[in-house]
This record gives sequence, C-alpha cells and structure tokens, in this order.
Amino acid sequence: MRSAVVVGTGLIGTSVALALSRRGVRVHLDDADTTAARAAEAVGAGTLDAPEGKVDLAVLAVPPAHIGAVLARAQANRLAHAYTDVASVKERPHDEIRAVGGDPSSYIGGHPLAGGERSGPLAARADLFEGRLWVLTPSARTDREVLNRGLELVSLCGAVPVLMDTDAHDRAVALTSHAPHLISSLMAARLADAESELVRVSGQGLRDITRIAAGEPALWSDILEANAEAVADVLDAYAADLNRVTAALRALDSSRPAERARAAADLDDVLRRGNQGHARVPHKQGTRPAEYLPVPVVIPDQPGALARLFSAVSAAGVNIEDVRIEHSHDEPRGLVELLVERSAVAQALRVVDANGWSLREEEPLPANP
Amino acid sequence: MRSAVVVGTGLIGTSVALALSRRGVRVHLDDADTTAARAAEAVGAGTLDAPEGKVDLAVLAVPPAHIGAVLARAQANRLAHAYTDVASVKERPHDEIRAVGGDPSSYIGGHPLAGGERSGPLAARADLFEGRLWVLTPSARTDREVLNRGLELVSLCGAVPVLMDTDAHDRAVALTSHAPHLISSLMAARLADAESELVRVSGQGLRDITRIAAGEPALWSDILEANAEAVADVLDAYAADLNRVTAALRALDSSRPAERARAAADLDDVLRRGNQGHARVPHKQGTRPAEYLPVPVVIPDQPGALARLFSAVSAAGVNIEDVRIEHSHDEPRGLVELLVERSAVAQALRVVDANGWSLREEEPLPANP
Repeated sequence: MRSAVVVGTGLIGTSVALALSRRGVRVHLDDADTTAARAAEAVGAGTLDAPEGKVDLAVLAVPPAHIGAVLARAQANRLAHAYTDVASVKERPHDEIRAVGGDPSSYIGGHPLAGGERSGPLAARADLFEGRLWVLTPSARTDREVLNRGLELVSLCGAVPVLMDTDAHDRAVALTSHAPHLISSLMAARLADAESELVRVSGQGLRDITRIAAGEPALWSDILEANAEAVADVLDAYAADLNRVTAALRALDSSRPAERARAAADLDDVLRRGNQGHARVPHKQGTRPAEYLPVPVVIPDQPGALARLFSAVSAAGVNIEDVRIEHSHDEPRGLVELLVERSAVAQALRVVDANGWSLREEEPLPANP
Repeated sequence: MRSAVVVGTGLIGTSVALALSRRGVRVHLDDADTTAARAAEAVGAGTLDAPEGKVDLAVLAVPPAHIGAVLARAQANRLAHAYTDVASVKERPHDEIRAVGGDPSSYIGGHPLAGGERSGPLAARADLFEGRLWVLTPSARTDREVLNRGLELVSLCGAVPVLMDTDAHDRAVALTSHAPHLISSLMAARLADAESELVRVSGQGLRDITRIAAGEPALWSDILEANAEAVADVLDAYAADLNRVTAALRALDSSRPAERARAAADLDDVLRRGNQGHARVPHKQGTRPAEYLPVPVVIPDQPGALARLFSAVSAAGVNIEDVRIEHSHDEPRGLVELLVERSAVAQALRVVDANGWSLREEEPLPANP
C-alpha cells in the first residue's frame, strides 16, 4: 500500500492515519470539520492536500449512519481502488451501501476493536491497534484484491485480523460490547439518585463495572440503534436470569425448606455460570497470565515445617503463587501443593529434594514440565 | 493498643495481623484450621501462642454466619476488652450477637473495604487497607472506649474510618458491591454457553464488567444470603430500568414516529443517568486524577496556527490533556480551549502571551489559578 485517504479524523481515523504514515504510506486526511482535520495534520497523521489520482485504500472513519452515503460519493469520485470502514456495526452499513447503489465489490467492512476514554484527533496514537483484534467482513461480492488490501491495513496497524460474516459480527458485539455497555449504564444509573452516604461506600468492583458507563450518550445511542434487535435479544436472556436471581434472593428465608433449597441452588447456579463465562473472556493480547503448575509436597506435620518450606523455596528464587494445604487425619504429615510458574517447577523440585521433603507419590509430575 | 487476637487467618485476618504487628502490637493468631494459622505465622503475622490475660482487641475475621457464636465464646472466655469483626454485612451479625446473648457493649461492627483476587494467608499484605474506607457500625449500646479502640485499629491499618448505622451500611453495600456482583455474574453467565467465535470478539469493556464475576461462589452465596432483601430491592429497580431499555430497543424501528421518539428518549435517558451515576463513583483513594483547567485562546483561523500553538505549548513542557475547538462563523478566528493541569496554567498563559495569541476575553481565568 502506497497511498490512502482517511475520511473522518476522530480518534480512530487519526490513529489509522498515524499508523499508516509511520509505515511510509502517503496519507491524505479529509474531514468536513476542517479544524479536526488540521489537528490531525498537526500531530503528523498525514496531509490535507487532495490526492492526485486514485489512492490504494480509502478508510471511512465516519459514524455508521453516514457510511453508505460517504462511500457512494467516494466511489462516484473514483477516490480509491478499495474502501473499508471502521464502524462497530457491520450489517447495516452493508445494507445501506446496497440501498444507495454503491459498488460492493470494492468495499470490505472493518471493525478494529480499539478505542479509548478520550476522543478526537489529539487522543490518537499510532499504536492504538497494536495486538488488538480487527474484524473484517467481506461479502460474497467483495473482490479478493480488496480483501487483501483490508488484511494489509490490519497488518500495517499491528492488529490481528479476524474474518466474520456481518451477522455473526453484529451478534458478537451485541453480546460482548453493546449489551455490556447498557448493563454498565443501568448499574451506574442506580447510583445517580442514591444517597451520598451510600455511594461513598464503594470499591474497585463498582469502579470496574461502571467504567464504560462514562461513554458519550449520543455516540452510544447511534451504535445501539444500529444493532438494536441483537442487543435486545441479549438483554432479554439477561433479564430472565436476573428475575430468577431476584426471586431466589426473596425466597432464601422462605418458611418452606424445599423453596429455600431451590433458591440457594438458583443463586449458586448463576454464580457458577458467571465463573465459567468469566473464564472464557479472552485476556488482553500480550498479557496472558503465567501458567502455574502444582508441586505436591509431603511435609512433617509439626510447627515450623511449613515456614521452613516457604523460606527454602523462596530463598531459591522460586515465587510461590499460591498454596493448597490438605489436612491428614490418619498420619502426622501435611500434604501441601505449591503453585509455581511452569518455568520454576524444576527449581522447586530441587529445593524439595535437597531439604529431604518428599513429593506426593500418587500424583507424579510430568517428566518434562 | 498493645495486644490483639486475630481469629481467622484468611486474607483479611492475616492482613490485619500483619499491619498491627508492623506497628508494634503483639498479635496472637487463632484459626480452627491450624495449617492456615501456621501459614499466617510463617509470613510474620503474629504468634500462635495463646495470650496471657485479656488482650486490648479481638478481631473476628470469620465468615458472617459464625460471628455471633465466635463472639459469645470469646466473651465467655474473657478474651479481650473490645471486639470487632470484618464481615461485609453488619445488620445480621448485630442481630445474632443479641440472639446468642453476647455483650453488645464491648462489640463494634467493622467492615474494611478491601480484598483481592486471591484469598488465604499467603495473599495477605500489611498495606491491604492503606487509604481504603473502613466502615464502623457502633450501636447505641457500644461503649465509647470500644468505639475508640475500633478507630485505633482502622488508623493502625492506614485506612479511613466511616461511622454508619448497620442498616445504612447494608443498603450501601447492596447498592455498591452485592448487586454489582450479581450484575457482573449475570453478564458473564451470558458468555458461558455462547459460541467461541462470538466471545473472541471482546475488548477491555467486557473484561472490566465481568472481572468480579470470578469471585468464589460459596463465599458470595454467604454474603448475598446475609443481605438478600436489600440486594433484591436494588435488582428490582435495576430490572425495571432494564425492561424499559429493552422495550425501547425493540421500538426504535417502530412505524409510529411518536413511539420511535419515545424509544430514543428512553435510551438516551438511561445512558445519561449512567453518565451521572458514573461521575458519583469515588475515585481510588490516593489516585485522584489531576485537576484540569481550561485555557481559552483566540488564534488566527489559518492553516498551521493550531499546530504552532500545540508545539509551542508542548515545547514549554505543558501537557495538553484535551482541547476543545469552537468554530467561529462570523470572523476569521479560531476559539480554542486547551485543558491543562492546574499547576501548568501559568506556564501555558506565558506561552500564549509570548506568541502573541490572545486569551478569550469573555471568560477571564481566576487570578490565582
């Protein structure tokens, strides 16, 4: 890719422009708001000069509702060989391009999963997309060359490409972004009129769950409107669970034992499914947590033995992430599982061995940890 | 305070013991799980020796359901002059102490707003409570000396004391902790059975909103059960808003203009109340964000002027946090508001002055920023 136009110099558009400029692509900036375009130019995102001839790619970083019209105009002006957008919904732009008579063969939908608390060109960063997912939604009519141009864009921005159907994409973001936004807003809304004394008693959990409720209402109204049915489907399922939990809370002190038991089971069920769902949320790219392995040790059940084990292992430079202790009622021995990083297992075993503690026999460790 | 007993050497109990030991208090550790008690001793939290005579304070860091019984037994054994607990609900422990015939005059309820992803004595930290709120719930029958002993405990742990009624405390944590926990679990539960392709498309927002759903189900069942009515009240109000939002999403493409308008207004309303509620969530103690002030500048409306302003201000070492640009249709001038830290306002003004830009006149800055 040698040349590109970025239409719309907000946070995303300017960040794309910065990333492309840094990789040697000549980037032309275009925004109806000339002050925003000038700000993007001032931070080094590209030039305000109009391109001479067709550019390789036009990135339409405009609100979802404008994509169809902007694309049709750009195609009529023969602006670029290939076109993509960065909107967080994909079904509707595809439909609108059809509706306004745009050419679907030179267009590939795109959605980089990145953003920030702040908006506008001055918040832009060339590394905004580094390691993030970037969904591309080619249709059956998208040219292979245009798809490849989209993949090149994602690569130049340092992001990870994922190809999806528009429908699957929109259901995905309804589940993982749009419904969560409303769920956060609804929780934060509970605090809007609450007594100050009550709101004061809050910790990190509340900060986490309400963080995204700070989003710009006008922007989120547009996003939610463009994906309303899929979001409503998620919220309906959510509401069914919510009603079951609330009923369970009310029934926990029922006079009927069977009702109490069912209420406790319902509550437990949603907490456990919450655990399972949480475990499925992908970690931030590049920050995958270390993998820990258990080192089972048998130590004499006498005062100070545990402390000696900890200090010997720590002195050997092995970080004990966690420990599980099992009680032995039959014999005077303690069964301990030290959780250490995979890379430190061998060193931990040496320490255990050198101190005359024995490994538990019934659960041998893999030979090559 | 010269001596204390900590009953229950989990994360919170051991952290309290570490904090007190570090400040020179002689701390006696007590846990029915002797291996946990030994682990707490091994990390330097105190001694396993029984105290000789009454200690100044006994901290009962046991599950909420056991506080009444543990307190009654401790008081019968004349363990301490004053007693407190660390449970995250307060109404029920107060009730249970009455029910088991405990002495309410030597007891003050307590709840430090701290915790961690991990549990157990090995995750304990002496600074776990540093800068955190610690609610104390004295009853009408709590001795003044016992209240002061509670305040001393909070101070020795580096926390910020807040006195509340038990009822207000429990409504507060229902709103700011217990209901948010379920709301997070319910969102995470939506992901438990979702297609992998959909879950993969997720970002920081989903990670934030589902983080607390990782909590231990057994522990949270106990907490929720002890505060069930107050939590159910919050969830009922939440559900009413949720149903209104879902109905609004379904009505956004109604054929009736009035219905569409009402749906859009309903959606906008919850997003705005979410903004308001988010703004009321206290920031983490000690990490209050910098305070920014606007510096209004009038610049010539010509290419490059904005870039020159930015580079001159940046070159002077002033960090521009944000910028607001107003368009002027009447005259060829740009009105710009630079948002800079309070401490940098004077420097920013000097730069503006030195470059011949003028401040906007209608909004003078305070004389002593």
